[in-house]
Amino acid sequence: MNLTILGCYSATPRTLNNTTSQVLEINNHMFLIDCGEGTQVQLRKHKIKFNRIKHIFISHLHGDHFFGLVGLISTFRLLTREADLHVYGPKGIKEVVILQMKLADSWTNYNLYFHELTSNDSELIFEDEKVEVYTIPLNHRVYTNGFLFKEKTGLRKLDVYAAEKAEINQAYFRKLTQGFDVVNEKGVLISNELVTKAAAKSKSYAFCSDTMYKEDIIPLIQNTDVLYHESTFLEQHSHLAKKTKHATAKEAASIAKQANIGTLLLGHYSTRYNDIGKFKDEAKELFDNVELAEDGKSFKF
Amino acid sequence: MNLTILGCYSATPRTLNNTTSQVLEINNHMFLIDCGEGTQVQLRKHKIKFNRIKHIFISHLHGDHFFGLVGLISTFRLLTREADLHVYGPKGIKEVVILQMKLADSWTNYNLYFHELTSNDSELIFEDEKVEVYTIPLNHRVYTNGFLFKEKTGLRKLDVYAAEKAEINQAYFRKLTQGFDVVNEKGVLISNELVTKAAAKSKSYAFCSDTMYKEDIIPLIQNTDVLYHESTFLEQHSHLAKKTKHATAKEAASIAKQANIGTLLLGHYSTRYNDIGKFKDEAKELFDNVELAEDGKSFKF
Repeated sequence: MNLTILGCYSATPRTLNNTTSQVLEINNHMFLIDCGEGTQVQLRKHKIKFNRIKHIFISHLHGDHFFGLVGLISTFRLLTREADLHVYGPKGIKEVVILQMKLADSWTNYNLYFHELTSNDSELIFEDEKVEVYTIPLNHRVYTNGFLFKEKTGLRKLDVYAAEKAEINQAYFRKLTQGFDVVNEKGVLISNELVTKAAAKSKSYAFCSDTMYKEDIIPLIQNTDVLYHESTFLEQHSHLAKKTKHATAKEAASIAKQANIGTLLLGHYSTRYNDIGKFKDEAKELFDNVELAEDGKSFKF
Repeated sequence: MNLTILGCYSATPRTLNNTTSQVLEINNHMFLIDCGEGTQVQLRKHKIKFNRIKHIFISHLHGDHFFGLVGLISTFRLLTREADLHVYGPKGIKEVVILQMKLADSWTNYNLYFHELTSNDSELIFEDEKVEVYTIPLNHRVYTNGFLFKEKTGLRKLDVYAAEKAEINQAYFRKLTQGFDVVNEKGVLISNELVTKAAAKSKSYAFCSDTMYKEDIIPLIQNTDVLYHESTFLEQHSHLAKKTKHATAKEAASIAKQANIGTLLLGHYSTRYNDIGKFKDEAKELFDNVELAEDGKSFKF
């Protein structure tokens, strides 16, 4: 699982600060999460192949999280994309994209599917054999969802040599990887654990931005490997966090601690702070394993 | 008159190429012409004060000319702008901005006026004591206008010493700068030319992008000091120019020649060409005074 931060600052794009967008590479998927203005240029800078992006998840319809979407959709067309594109985001996202295409007398030469979200409960919005994506309802000034990306538990790893030695017929090998005990050629029941090893641990990533401190999300993200939680402010500006429905670094750390997260990744910093190191310092007072998102930085989990 | 090219490439923003946007500084106005994605970052890079921009002119509703508008309007709000903002552009521009503000549950804390254009004839759309702005109807795939920015003819320059020597009462000085002959203290009619000099030549700038070759614009831009005319293609791709309703460098030069332009400024290059010098070479075969627009380049007229 690789995460590339294309932008992690709040409010407005600046010469050196991009607004929110991330690419999560998980089991051959390239999921784009949020799409602030300039995301397509950030994708080019980081040499991420446009055609590999087939799913875009938009948390909410504030400009710093989605003003780059229509441009990206339009550029996909100009680059003669053929692959389907699925966009998940709040109700209204389809109308705004379609209106702009209509005004430009434009179209897409690929299939564009909108999956509009309206529920206030967590929903499974994407699933294939290997990955599931759930919404994480957040609390911001407008309807907002975070997203939980989970690898499904994989197959157990077969020790072929041990299985052959135990005289198990090959026809049962698949059942073994699925965790079943099987009967060998001599009619003896062989315990699964004797001939297989545990599956590689399945990874999970939760993206929670923008939101104020919201304890309801804790059960949804319990034990997640990596949590990206917004920390627009430091505690010294907690009154601004409350007023604008954002969180502080300390609040993000508190959520991470309560949810038993592996690594907390902070981001969505207000540009009022010159030193983002302070976010890490503040969070570390409550929770040890803290990383700072930075534009252009990649994380391997 | 200063012109700063923020972006002059066609189709999609890239790491080193920005889509169309320019700032024209004329008689204390800062007119923003077109607003491709990323324009607000380009404005920051070139240290153009956001508050000085009070008028934005949008040629047409293709993304490479207006996808940066909603972000700029939104950023103006976040920076607590108070000055009025006037946006001139094709019908529909208001709906698309308002829809996005509605979805973001957002607003402007300054007055935002939309002047929607629908006419196929040239219109005077802005005027004050010193400057006039006219539309230049163009021929592109969607409804498109160029814009003609004209300084009004200024006042004649009074030679105070000569006027006093000719015994003209100071009460008539203003009339003299307006070009009138006046009667002096002795009742003698004094010819205006004896005591004034011609006004500084008023400058003019025509922006014509996007458009295919269109001779109808020639009378509108006759004798203009500087013409920015799109040249998306070279003649070798004239079939593509026709198909997409764009112009070649040669066609731009032909318009400049027929309209007796001072300087032709080329831009809106397709990124298929590695060497934009070829646009200049091609145009110079027909017209001598050719300059190339480049992102970040400024011109003083």
